Amino acid sequence: MFIRNAWYIAGWSDEVAGAPFGRRILDEPIVMFRDASGKVAALEDRCCHRGAPLTFGWTCPEGIQCGYHGLVYDRSGRCVLVPGDHNIPPDARVRSYPVVEQNQFIWIWMGDAALADESRIIDFPFHDDRANWPHQHTVYHIKGSYLMMVDNLMDLSHLGYVHDRTVGGTPLTHVEARQRVERNPDGVRITRWMLNSVPPPTYVKAAGFKGRVDRCQEFVFIAPSNVLQWTAAVDAGAGAYEPGHHGGGFCFRIFHGMTPETDNTCFYFWSVANNYSQHDPAATTMLFDEIARTFVEDQAIVEAQQARLDEHPERPLVNVHGDGAVIHARRVIERMIAEENPSASAAAGR
Amino acid sequence: MFIRNAWYIAGWSDEVAGAPFGRRILDEPIVMFRDASGKVAALEDRCCHRGAPLTFGWTCPEGIQCGYHGLVYDRSGRCVLVPGDHNIPPDARVRSYPVVEQNQFIWIWMGDAALADESRIIDFPFHDDRANWPHQHTVYHIKGSYLMMVDNLMDLSHLGYVHDRTVGGTPLTHVEARQRVERNPDGVRITRWMLNSVPPPTYVKAAGFKGRVDRCQEFVFIAPSNVLQWTAAVDAGAGAYEPGHHGGGFCFRIFHGMTPETDNTCFYFWSVANNYSQHDPAATTMLFDEIARTFVEDQAIVEAQQARLDEHPERPLVNVHGDGAVIHARRVIERMIAEENPSASAAAGR
Amino acid sequence: MFIRNAWYIAGWSDEVAGAPFGRRILDEPIVMFRDASGKVAALEDRCCHRGAPLTFGWTCPEGIQCGYHGLVYDRSGRCVLVPGDHNIPPDARVRSYPVVEQNQFIWIWMGDAALADESRIIDFPFHDDRANWPHQHTVYHIKGSYLMMVDNLMDLSHLGYVHDRTVGGTPLTHVEARQRVERNPDGVRITRWMLNSVPPPTYVKAAGFKGRVDRCQEFVFIAPSNVLQWTAAVDAGAGAYEPGHHGGGFCFRIFHGMTPETDNTCFYFWSVANNYSQHDPAATTMLFDEIARTFVEDQAIVEAQQARLDEHPERPLVNVHGDGAVIHARRVIERMIAEENPSASAAAGR
Repeated sequence: MFIRNAWYIAGWSDEVAGAPFGRRILDEPIVMFRDASGKVAALEDRCCHRGAPLTFGWTCPEGIQCGYHGLVYDRSGRCVLVPGDHNIPPDARVRSYPVVEQNQFIWIWMGDAALADESRIIDFPFHDDRANWPHQHTVYHIKGSYLMMVDNLMDLSHLGYVHDRTVGGTPLTHVEARQRVERNPDGVRITRWMLNSVPPPTYVKAAGFKGRVDRCQEFVFIAPSNVLQWTAAVDAGAGAYEPGHHGGGFCFRIFHGMTPETDNTCFYFWSVANNYSQHDPAATTMLFDEIARTFVEDQAIVEAQQARLDEHPERPLVNVHGDGAVIHARRVIERMIAEENPSASAAAGR
Repeated sequence: MFIRNAWYIAGWSDEVAGAPFGRRILDEPIVMFRDASGKVAALEDRCCHRGAPLTFGWTCPEGIQCGYHGLVYDRSGRCVLVPGDHNIPPDARVRSYPVVEQNQFIWIWMGDAALADESRIIDFPFHDDRANWPHQHTVYHIKGSYLMMVDNLMDLSHLGYVHDRTVGGTPLTHVEARQRVERNPDGVRITRWMLNSVPPPTYVKAAGFKGRVDRCQEFVFIAPSNVLQWTAAVDAGAGAYEPGHHGGGFCFRIFHGMTPETDNTCFYFWSVANNYSQHDPAATTMLFDEIARTFVEDQAIVEAQQARLDEHPERPLVNVHGDGAVIHARRVIERMIAEENPSASAAAGR
Repeated sequence: MFIRNAWYIAGWSDEVAGAPFGRRILDEPIVMFRDASGKVAALEDRCCHRGAPLTFGWTCPEGIQCGYHGLVYDRSGRCVLVPGDHNIPPDARVRSYPVVEQNQFIWIWMGDAALADESRIIDFPFHDDRANWPHQHTVYHIKGSYLMMVDNLMDLSHLGYVHDRTVGGTPLTHVEARQRVERNPDGVRITRWMLNSVPPPTYVKAAGFKGRVDRCQEFVFIAPSNVLQWTAAVDAGAGAYEPGHHGGGFCFRIFHGMTPETDNTCFYFWSVANNYSQHDPAATTMLFDEIARTFVEDQAIVEAQQARLDEHPERPLVNVHGDGAVIHARRVIERMIAEENPSASAAAGR
């Protein structure tokens, strides 16, 4: 069961350009397009006439035209043309979804449209601030639930094992990191310090460290499915260190946006923005390429994990000491699902 | 549920040559072959001994021999040899299906053999009249129900959208075509006139039209699953115009034979026969190639439509003004299914 | 339903070398590895912490380490390290399976470990006797039940049909072979003589026969799923002939080990060891290559048969005269399953 009354990332702005663009979200087929105004719209990707996907059609000034028999819909999902028929049937319409374009994302609201509150959309101005935070972005299709991806980001002890050859570095550095976990009603904030540690290969490549470094990372999970990461490193002993404050060295932000496609697949929208060497596009590209390599490692383990769990979903797992953040993140999601479905949760609780 | 007491196209005659030929029809595995007499037979493609497909065997003078342990069956499905065993078990037989070879088709009867009436087979002498109607034929595998293919052919407003770059031409020409729909007990006849219209690219290529044309088309649906198409065009104003009569110009016939493979896949047997430039094989080939291009367009939209409908088969569709022929064709099919299954339809009606 | 209290082949010894090695057996995911002692172990391939497959990890002196968060398990399946946690939860363990390494095989016991009796493992010293019985071995993945493979080996009349171009030779030679079938409580022994017969191409290639030969074959099925084959040929009339005794000519042994992967797939471990030209590796390779060709033929027919039977598993098959060994082998398997599951079989018998 999904949280429906929430904003999910439906796509990057630049994904919805000329042709209609289809994507399955929360197991519903969606088509996105822009009409003559340039405004983006999201409709159910199924013509009400004979069920053909509207992604097989084309955009037109009024909105989108079905590629089978030519019905035209506007951004609200209303049919405004039935070729050869002057009387458009009153039930000729498809569902439309609220969408907002902000910070290079197209955000979609999959639940009750009356509850769609734009102020709840995550603000991420760094995507628009290319002077200070140049970034690159992409989207991966993951054959694993968004929950597995959230778990992955909430237990950072994996860095030393999954990513030992890239951003991770030595396992013990991660296992022994000093860590603060703040449990919030809508998520979790993890802050970690790895002081006086050997910088991983990626860091050295990017910032040219000569010796040991003080590392600091912040991961903020905001339910249902986004994680904002801030990472920095400076020469060891270069000063007190708190997330958001930094004095040179190596620093980047990652946006991890996980949108459910089906119960056990998701889209992983991510970007990395660097706060160093901002005038050198090669620096941004190098960082993106390094991070991309690590996310492919995450994808492999998450997909294998999902396949194994799908075999016997009822079998329990064993929690260990480091699972506090994972467990809280899952509780937040479960609470939100229960709040949306009071009768279902009452029945389950009996 | 399929109409069973009907003749379906099982294959083109030239598909059943040397080796046993397998095809799934109405969700039953069929093997076709010729014995020493040259007569074609259709048996269940499953040896009664250990279940091996007979398509893995080979033909022999008596019929077909299983490639696993050598059992031989004649055209009636009776086992006539068990290697090493003089007593052939009386239940050693496989189901045989009535087949008739006619007009380059192999027709098969999938229901009660006692009801198989050869006079009900569609007569299509044009396939045998190569002097006047040279043709080419093929078969496509469609990941969509035969019903979607019938719908496709019964709503010709799609021509201007799906086939705008090939046989279609401008959408409005099709939307505004004058059309006559005759509802028959066993099907539908659609006649359409597009007078004084711009000929589509395919027509110009084939017949060298210099200006506008009068176009006429006839589509005859004969339940359960075949459509006979007749199409012609002459210079605009060249004379009165009725299907079957023509005075030069551009004229062809298409046989559309859709045979269910499973509930949501089918085989699409089709041919195109031209009634112009009969002594020029290149003309036949050019027409075939053009039509083939359009049918690949149909296949794409039909398969996408099927996938979408399969997600929520219970959801209603919206009919529009132009759907009269589609709706009648579906009613004929439903009536025939109900007549074959009186108890099921009584139960459904309660 | 599988026989669980039995030894199955889990792999060839040489398959479990450096990295963890995964294989699904009786529909359970298994990971095999060696710890610092070199002893092989088989564990459930699912970390108890977050369900990641242990095959994504790596071996270590203590056993195997999960590649996600670094938990370490020893050969008994006990977790001996949780990175960053001094208190290992008592339920942190995964199932381990008894394994025995013998005659180049890794044998695994999938049932109640208390009943695992090593003396019941099939003895096959020929794999270790490379001076007299040089061999080559491999494993095939078969999209068919191990039962189909047992059937295949218990009805040798297929040799003349499936393998007519390789080891089979003329069908009638096989159909008319003199055959003795011994029914044992745990299997079947088939002995066959084809006296004064034309040697198949493979035999001539290997042994250079100039004329007719006396052939003798023995196939011993030992439930649940292994068949030991002994095959020999000498010049026709060269003397009395019994399995195990031979006086030159052409002679080889095949081990057919079929281990269920799922209900309708299996692993087919096989080797061929020759008892002629022992000092010529090319002779062993030539024989292996010839046999491999025939097993690909078996694989094709068995997979097609399985697919056909899966369509309507409830439909009966027709037995013929030559099916005695097949039927007895199946009865042994069914009896063993019933003995393991007394309540299920009582319920089925009511």
